[in-house]
Amino acid sequence: MITIRDVARLAGVSVATVSRVLNNTAITTPETKAVVQSAVAELGYRPNANAQALATQSSDMLGVVVMDVSDPFFGALVKGVDEVAQRERKNLLIANSYHDADKERKAIEMLIRQRCNALIVHAKMLSDDELVAFMHQVPGMVLINRIVPGYEHRCVGLNNLAGGKIATQLLLDKGHRRIGFLGSNHQIEDQVMRQKGYETAMQSAGVEIGKAWCAYASPDLQGGEAAMVELLGRNQQLSAVFAYNDAMAAGALAVLKENGISIPEQFSIVGFDDIPIARYTSPKLTTVRYPIVSMATLASELALKSAHQTPLSTNGHCFMPTLVQRWSVGSR
Amino acid sequence: MITIRDVARLAGVSVATVSRVLNNTAITTPETKAVVQSAVAELGYRPNANAQALATQSSDMLGVVVMDVSDPFFGALVKGVDEVAQRERKNLLIANSYHDADKERKAIEMLIRQRCNALIVHAKMLSDDELVAFMHQVPGMVLINRIVPGYEHRCVGLNNLAGGKIATQLLLDKGHRRIGFLGSNHQIEDQVMRQKGYETAMQSAGVEIGKAWCAYASPDLQGGEAAMVELLGRNQQLSAVFAYNDAMAAGALAVLKENGISIPEQFSIVGFDDIPIARYTSPKLTTVRYPIVSMATLASELALKSAHQTPLSTNGHCFMPTLVQRWSVGSR
Repeated sequence: MITIRDVARLAGVSVATVSRVLNNTAITTPETKAVVQSAVAELGYRPNANAQALATQSSDMLGVVVMDVSDPFFGALVKGVDEVAQRERKNLLIANSYHDADKERKAIEMLIRQRCNALIVHAKMLSDDELVAFMHQVPGMVLINRIVPGYEHRCVGLNNLAGGKIATQLLLDKGHRRIGFLGSNHQIEDQVMRQKGYETAMQSAGVEIGKAWCAYASPDLQGGEAAMVELLGRNQQLSAVFAYNDAMAAGALAVLKENGISIPEQFSIVGFDDIPIARYTSPKLTTVRYPIVSMATLASELALKSAHQTPLSTNGHCFMPTLVQRWSVGSR
Repeated sequence: MITIRDVARLAGVSVATVSRVLNNTAITTPETKAVVQSAVAELGYRPNANAQALATQSSDMLGVVVMDVSDPFFGALVKGVDEVAQRERKNLLIANSYHDADKERKAIEMLIRQRCNALIVHAKMLSDDELVAFMHQVPGMVLINRIVPGYEHRCVGLNNLAGGKIATQLLLDKGHRRIGFLGSNHQIEDQVMRQKGYETAMQSAGVEIGKAWCAYASPDLQGGEAAMVELLGRNQQLSAVFAYNDAMAAGALAVLKENGISIPEQFSIVGFDDIPIARYTSPKLTTVRYPIVSMATLASELALKSAHQTPLSTNGHCFMPTLVQRWSVGSR
């Protein structure tokens, strides 16, 4: 790797002079400037971002922690952050936590060690106390999809309870009573609150949920397939399911069709998130929209402001999910 | 942010002593060690990764450049790289180039400035010459999905021409003659070679391709929809299409079904890539498998070896696509 010392040697000047020319920090003669610039060009020298970050104790990087960047939901989150990063001329450092507390902690630690001064963190496995300790140390750290008491102004969340209610209420309104739930086997808050929304709506409608109406699996296409196979096997005479997310709903849809059950004529499904796949299943999925791009944009803006010590308003940032009706729900 | 100076102050020792304790670079008394370690714990100090990177002129980071991390194909690529990174205890820095030459150049420059000593680059917009200049400067830079003459041992590619031929040959073997092509509107090598494979197979079968049998759009679900609508509108009596990738194929499938055209009875489709979505369309997509995870794993291993000056064999690394038959192709 070419260093500033190589440039100084070729130009026949001191390292300090090269630095002055590159950073425009002091007046240099046009001749010195020219000789340094030609050495830089000849060697293909690039200033070391680590040196710049060390000198200022901060970097031009925005860090983001997600569970798995190859999951379309997190892909959309990262893209929302990246759009703000590009606009603000920051670079993006991404770390995956893979549904594991230790990896979640290490991902945050790594981004702090890289001196990302703005951090957008999707953390579900660590305790509030541990996250508060991180947020106390790093002013530019903002949480997404989680609200920690006392730090509401640096948290961007979604009302998952309302989302679960909306989805279930739609099915109830269409005359369904025996409604199942396809849940995630990661017992994170999203799962707990969406299921609670389902339970609340069912209770309000006076429907007692059968013990065998809920099945749990990984929150992806394969998991949706597995959970739906399990529910069908239990033969509970369900006429509809509310799925934890669209990927699970799409997996369930595939299983139902393979079993000759037509949707929405014989069976109804509602998903959650409104990722692109929801518009390309057949029939298109009725789902609950999670405004993840808007939320990621806001979280990034808050993180950058907070990193630069701009005071934030003390308001919290809780988004509301909305129903998107397509073709996977029919009347009972 | 807590610095090493704060630790030294609290421990009542010099910065050099703190550094010696933390890096185990010289013998210190157990008392000094204890007082430094308790100061580190009390302040929550974390060594500055930029300082470590500056001292060694390299970082513990592996960099990866992709076109768009929210595209499932690139999501799978990044995940393959991340698996190697985790195994080798490296952190991952990801940059998006969004199908733009200038952003592609900036993404590579940014990762070099961060002193990533291993780089996996998916670059399609820059010239061979420009990439060679980068690879000459950065020994740990490896290209994925592109082969640059003279640097074959640091390139991992796929035979896209063979893939285009395999897909088209399957349709020809099933009796189709009027076969269309849904292409990407990014004229990158993948697009050119897959189309060339299609043309070669058609020519070998003695079928002249109609001027209006090919339509181009963005290589995603929406693009597949748009290109298929365009082809149907031209009324060319096609009985099959080969799509540039699975996302376009899934978009086309949705349009065909909305128009009451049943698949595979009335119309056949072959995709490319074998991303998860291919198994959740209805019917499941027949496609050409792009072994992106294996390729990303190999590219990461080559980059790490090459960064550590381990000589690589001079062999090239060209993978072959394979046909995955599912249910979207019928006999004519």
